[in-house]
Amino acid sequence: MSVDRNAANREAFDRLCRAEPVVVDVLPTIEVAPGMTRETILTSGPPMPWKDYVGGQREAIVGGALFEGLASDREDAIRKLDAGAIKIGGCHDFGCVGSLAGIYTASMPVFVVQNRAFGNTGYCNFYEGTNPRRLNYGVYDRGVRDRLLFIQNEVAPVIGEAIRAAGGVPLKPLMSRALHMGDELHSRNTASSMLFAKELMPHFIDMASRNRDTVKRAVQAMTEDHYFFLRLSMAAAKASADAARDVPGSSMVTAMVIGCHGFAIRVSGLGDEWIKGPFPQIQAKLFDGHTEDEITWMGGESIIAETIGLGGFAQASAPALQKYQGGSASAMIERNQELYKITIGENPDYHIPVLNYRGTPTGIDIFKVVETGVLPAMDIGVAGRDGGQIGAGIVRAPMECFTDAAKKYTARYGANR
Amino acid sequence: MSVDRNAANREAFDRLCRAEPVVVDVLPTIEVAPGMTRETILTSGPPMPWKDYVGGQREAIVGGALFEGLASDREDAIRKLDAGAIKIGGCHDFGCVGSLAGIYTASMPVFVVQNRAFGNTGYCNFYEGTNPRRLNYGVYDRGVRDRLLFIQNEVAPVIGEAIRAAGGVPLKPLMSRALHMGDELHSRNTASSMLFAKELMPHFIDMASRNRDTVKRAVQAMTEDHYFFLRLSMAAAKASADAARDVPGSSMVTAMVIGCHGFAIRVSGLGDEWIKGPFPQIQAKLFDGHTEDEITWMGGESIIAETIGLGGFAQASAPALQKYQGGSASAMIERNQELYKITIGENPDYHIPVLNYRGTPTGIDIFKVVETGVLPAMDIGVAGRDGGQIGAGIVRAPMECFTDAAKKYTARYGANR
Repeated sequence: MSVDRNAANREAFDRLCRAEPVVVDVLPTIEVAPGMTRETILTSGPPMPWKDYVGGQREAIVGGALFEGLASDREDAIRKLDAGAIKIGGCHDFGCVGSLAGIYTASMPVFVVQNRAFGNTGYCNFYEGTNPRRLNYGVYDRGVRDRLLFIQNEVAPVIGEAIRAAGGVPLKPLMSRALHMGDELHSRNTASSMLFAKELMPHFIDMASRNRDTVKRAVQAMTEDHYFFLRLSMAAAKASADAARDVPGSSMVTAMVIGCHGFAIRVSGLGDEWIKGPFPQIQAKLFDGHTEDEITWMGGESIIAETIGLGGFAQASAPALQKYQGGSASAMIERNQELYKITIGENPDYHIPVLNYRGTPTGIDIFKVVETGVLPAMDIGVAGRDGGQIGAGIVRAPMECFTDAAKKYTARYGANR
Repeated sequence: MSVDRNAANREAFDRLCRAEPVVVDVLPTIEVAPGMTRETILTSGPPMPWKDYVGGQREAIVGGALFEGLASDREDAIRKLDAGAIKIGGCHDFGCVGSLAGIYTASMPVFVVQNRAFGNTGYCNFYEGTNPRRLNYGVYDRGVRDRLLFIQNEVAPVIGEAIRAAGGVPLKPLMSRALHMGDELHSRNTASSMLFAKELMPHFIDMASRNRDTVKRAVQAMTEDHYFFLRLSMAAAKASADAARDVPGSSMVTAMVIGCHGFAIRVSGLGDEWIKGPFPQIQAKLFDGHTEDEITWMGGESIIAETIGLGGFAQASAPALQKYQGGSASAMIERNQELYKITIGENPDYHIPVLNYRGTPTGIDIFKVVETGVLPAMDIGVAGRDGGQIGAGIVRAPMECFTDAAKKYTARYGANR
């Protein structure tokens, strides 16, 4: 099969960039995610048989089963997972995208983000909050459970009602603006969280006479730290990237994921296959009291942000991130600039003021990665061996995914591309 | 009189930096500004006899008289001003600080900002809103009047109530954080306005059951553009800079102002004298439909922000400003870095992430300006000949103020400093 790779990549890039993500509702996963069942637990990375999940990601799946009431205790959960009575799915196959371990259970509320330019929809569940011990970091205890119930019973309904009252909230304008206010929309979502809260504020004020304290707590949860909007950024990125899938001949990356056994990518012209490689390289800054040897991998799909030209690909917009994840402002700017070597174009909507409003490097071309040796850079949270977040850092995707993808591409489309 | 200039400047710098500005209330000017009377109109710049005010600043004073009901029409106002029945004061002499023409009348609400470290207080009235035709830009018509009444009757009472309910809001933490989110707190106050609104949000929600629509309109006014927080930044800067006044032997600038006849500065060791010079040099970016020949001067004291290490002295924090006032990101960073040559120290609370969190250059030393030839850079709004804002830009203080101040300093303290 012969194709024009440049033309195909241009098409994939355009589809990615023309996306118009709009959050329209908040609903339980079971009601919206295609194929979701009461007994299914979604998790990050290429889906695997239950027995292959290890470490924190395995613990997170067990925690999800307990939270959803699918098992009476840990042993019961493992028995049911062994027996296949509790099933496991990969988030991406259900229209979702998972933060770290990326656990979704049937009742968990998700943001419903429609891509109004193409009609497809992406979903993401809610940020759990400031406590580093969280289900998506492999921890499940009473505190985690209470927080998940608080999100489910208080935060999500209030925000969902406000979103519906607003008739949906277009996300691209908020995300575009947040890049002018120090966010890169992966590890820093400070401005975007406030912009989103501001957008819903008139509706919160309308709702305040009925349930004042709940509204206050929801607003607090939305704005108390740097991560709330990440889940909207992820859902928007998923809805945007999915529109660029399955363009024949395109060598553009449409998803990147981390699982407990390594890194994987999907390429537009190579269908749904996850092309796997080892773990990424990491430069981390750890919270006080933690050490490098604790660092572990338990999944992560929030790098969908980088897939559409945000996060590490917009790092120069967020110099304040250096306090959180290390590095220097000049290194962040240089790293960001280098990524133009591996991308198809400059984003027409997401701009970097400190680069004189240049569009972010967008649409990773596997061949450019192989040819230049420049690896996609991503901003991520760092998980600890015993569960919980222990820091943040910058990771580089492994070259193996790209060389392998280039081989598969050549096998399918021929060598003269 | 012999003094140790370095020690005196260190003292003035420390007093400036140790300020703890807290907004504690919103009250009418007449109730708080020392010496204010019903018949007084405050305006920017070194105070002058009425007959010396020209152009837009003169028009703004007349507009203030009409707004306050001190005169029945324009002619009546001019007659009463001629006769001295309506008096004019300089904002700084009344604890206030004026944006552009800087008109204060007795009934106008002001933010009351206490410097909790030193016990002094600064005041600033409210941003008029997004319409470029505003009283502080020399325009007074029905639209301006209605907007001023809206501020006075709706916005100010709601915000004042929320501030009191909060028990006051410390401003330094908000300002410090806003510098990490793309503000420089003079011509860009986007993040700070949202941070301030967020701080008051629980109280707005409490108030919503009583007057929902007014609360909504107040929140809208606080967050609809980039300027709302400027008036809090100015009051905080005034309260901070005033604490550094009158340090014998200090050559640090404690205020800079523009009037309709030129620029002027105050120096800590030189008392209350305004040391005058010509107009500043300007590089402006004008709104569509306006031309350079329309640019005019009608006052401006918002450069109190630069006096304490913000605005032009924090420009590298706000690369998004280039769209508004022109220039490039790299020029903004270079200009900001050059200002370290004329300042006494690096601000301990206001940091610039893109300069690896270096403290902003703070405390202008008149001798360093004279010796290096580097002129203080300031971010300002640009007024048009026919009134109204016609753009924004970067100005440089005139050297004459600094050479003249150096002469006066030497005359007072001797040459061997």
